[in-house]
Amino acid sequence: MSKVAIVYFSGYGHTKKQAEAVLAGAASVAGTVVELIRIDEQGNLSDAAWEMLVASDGIIFGSPTYMGGVAWQFKKFADASSKPWYAQAWKDKPAAGFTNSASMNGDKGSTISYMITFAMQHSMLWVGTGMLPANSKAAVRNDVNYLAGSSGLLAQSPSDSTPDEGPLPGDLETAKLFGVRFAEQVKRLTK
Amino acid sequence: MSKVAIVYFSGYGHTKKQAEAVLAGAASVAGTVVELIRIDEQGNLSDAAWEMLVASDGIIFGSPTYMGGVAWQFKKFADASSKPWYAQAWKDKPAAGFTNSASMNGDKGSTISYMITFAMQHSMLWVGTGMLPANSKAAVRNDVNYLAGSSGLLAQSPSDSTPDEGPLPGDLETAKLFGVRFAEQVKRLTK
Amino acid sequence: MSKVAIVYFSGYGHTKKQAEAVLAGAASVAGTVVELIRIDEQGNLSDAAWEMLVASDGIIFGSPTYMGGVAWQFKKFADASSKPWYAQAWKDKPAAGFTNSASMNGDKGSTISYMITFAMQHSMLWVGTGMLPANSKAAVRNDVNYLAGSSGLLAQSPSDSTPDEGPLPGDLETAKLFGVRFAEQVKRLTK
Amino acid sequence: MSKVAIVYFSGYGHTKKQAEAVLAGAASVAGTVVELIRIDEQGNLSDAAWEMLVASDGIIFGSPTYMGGVAWQFKKFADASSKPWYAQAWKDKPAAGFTNSASMNGDKGSTISYMITFAMQHSMLWVGTGMLPANSKAAVRNDVNYLAGSSGLLAQSPSDSTPDEGPLPGDLETAKLFGVRFAEQVKRLTK
Repeated sequence: MSKVAIVYFSGYGHTKKQAEAVLAGAASVAGTVVELIRIDEQGNLSDAAWEMLVASDGIIFGSPTYMGGVAWQFKKFADASSKPWYAQAWKDKPAAGFTNSASMNGDKGSTISYMITFAMQHSMLWVGTGMLPANSKAAVRNDVNYLAGSSGLLAQSPSDSTPDEGPLPGDLETAKLFGVRFAEQVKRLTK
Repeated sequence: MSKVAIVYFSGYGHTKKQAEAVLAGAASVAGTVVELIRIDEQGNLSDAAWEMLVASDGIIFGSPTYMGGVAWQFKKFADASSKPWYAQAWKDKPAAGFTNSASMNGDKGSTISYMITFAMQHSMLWVGTGMLPANSKAAVRNDVNYLAGSSGLLAQSPSDSTPDEGPLPGDLETAKLFGVRFAEQVKRLTK
Repeated sequence: MSKVAIVYFSGYGHTKKQAEAVLAGAASVAGTVVELIRIDEQGNLSDAAWEMLVASDGIIFGSPTYMGGVAWQFKKFADASSKPWYAQAWKDKPAAGFTNSASMNGDKGSTISYMITFAMQHSMLWVGTGMLPANSKAAVRNDVNYLAGSSGLLAQSPSDSTPDEGPLPGDLETAKLFGVRFAEQVKRLTK
Repeated sequence: MSKVAIVYFSGYGHTKKQAEAVLAGAASVAGTVVELIRIDEQGNLSDAAWEMLVASDGIIFGSPTYMGGVAWQFKKFADASSKPWYAQAWKDKPAAGFTNSASMNGDKGSTISYMITFAMQHSMLWVGTGMLPANSKAAVRNDVNYLAGSSGLLAQSPSDSTPDEGPLPGDLETAKLFGVRFAEQVKRLTK
């Protein structure tokens, strides 16, 4: 069995919904078990969660984009990871990242870019979306990868939407396919 | 009079249209003259154009996003600018950047990020869009700053659109307002 | 009088020392008053500090680089700034950034890059170091800008150094000159 | 046999020397063959070279850092790769990157960051250096990873050095170990 861990923070519930869609995708890949780990409001993880990360075969990072970067709670988790970093306990594991924000761009790329730097310090291997964008004249908002992420998974939920309203179905479908891709790459690397 | 230079490359004409909208905005600011300088297909500028850049009070950079960054012709221009760089001939001038690509994100942020690094090596001051994003549930595609650029101006033209079809009116209106903002900052800095 | 605010976090004292050198430089510019604001261990600022930022003519951001980005305490401050962001209360103010870490690179560029994105969301103007690097064969570690920052100020303090031992004199001299440059740009923009 | 391709541009010969050290490292891994492909002065590759890239099991990208990014010749190669991109002909191959410049930082991170975005558009997997930095008080310039790259391999050659003088032995040794790491990851992924 391949073990995929998804470690994420969600402030209002939109990123949680995105995380659950990624989970659904990853868990649909035969021979894969997925752990969903939520960073708490104070930016902390339980000891059991830290151990799960070390025991995993691949880790997906998730955070909303707040003020052009990961939420501070996610950053607190990242800073606390200096212990496994020092031991290089996550070395060679595949990693990937996702983010949600209210705007089309909203500097989501800055969040993903940080996650990559973070994963590289941990000597992990970075896996992107592996998806071409939907960008012809015929493209519609609910197409897969309409937001056109390559380095990481992107979703958008309007600033005044509830988690029931956003992310939109197309972004959630994209999240599912991203989960599938990641789990498949983990399998490829762990067999 | 404040002198604003717009130096850009355009492959198919979409970025040219964006550049012209930026020009219209900047030129509408009283006491501002604007020069539009197109980098040619081989990535070259005339000597007169290089002199215009040195003589300007502020420079706006523009390029389509190709394969996650500025077009190679723009990069050739950037590499050739090592001469004014060495003399720090653009020092303290305000700078800004714009880009167009086929997708909603399509790594446009990577292009703008490069332009900032480039401007910083030239010791310029970076001016962003100064616009909040249109990102509520009521937002529509043709709203000003629907693409939500903060560090630079973003436009999107579908992969199969002609320059007559894209960028869309909302993106061009955003470009105009961006030109206004930049020219006003140049005035503020040159008076 | 021009009012410059320096808002920073320091974990062990090295970044504090860097902040103080920036302060010394900025305060040496005639007609400039400088406020030094330290983000506390929980990532909080006093109400008075938030008001100082709004009242300032320019803001310098500082943070150590931890795990490839700003310290979480700085990010918590950034996230809390969504209030002045919403009101665009810092709009058009010049901004700049500095960081210290144990390594020569150590992804300090990722920290500065985040600070730029953050400042752009606040519609500020970004000011870099305005310094050429010391990079000839004759260059030595204590030269001004030996670390070669352009977008922001960089310092390095070995992982096992005390704040008395690092940053080195050359990095502190660079910090001072950076403070001078920023204060001069603020004067230029506020007169 | 695993096939590793190194595709790079070198302007003055320093990056060529770095490429050769990476080659030496990769070729030392049992069961690995390495192709060294030099992008020419006009930014072009032969048809045979393009085919080698498609036939490879992993690709390492290399370029000097000029004006804060890859050399324009490398960017021209990247733009020309829109054909294999469209066909996703490099999908799932591991990728990595290296760069050399005259300064300690000199925005080398910006170059590596671009290479990652580029590789992600090609749906490749990114492999970093997998090395901790040498950053204690006892560290010396010729230590492995003194420059402290995590996302990519960094080297520094003074602005007035010949390729015989730079990169320094420590940077070349780091390059060799980076080549070893990449070849081992390719083996892991292709078995």
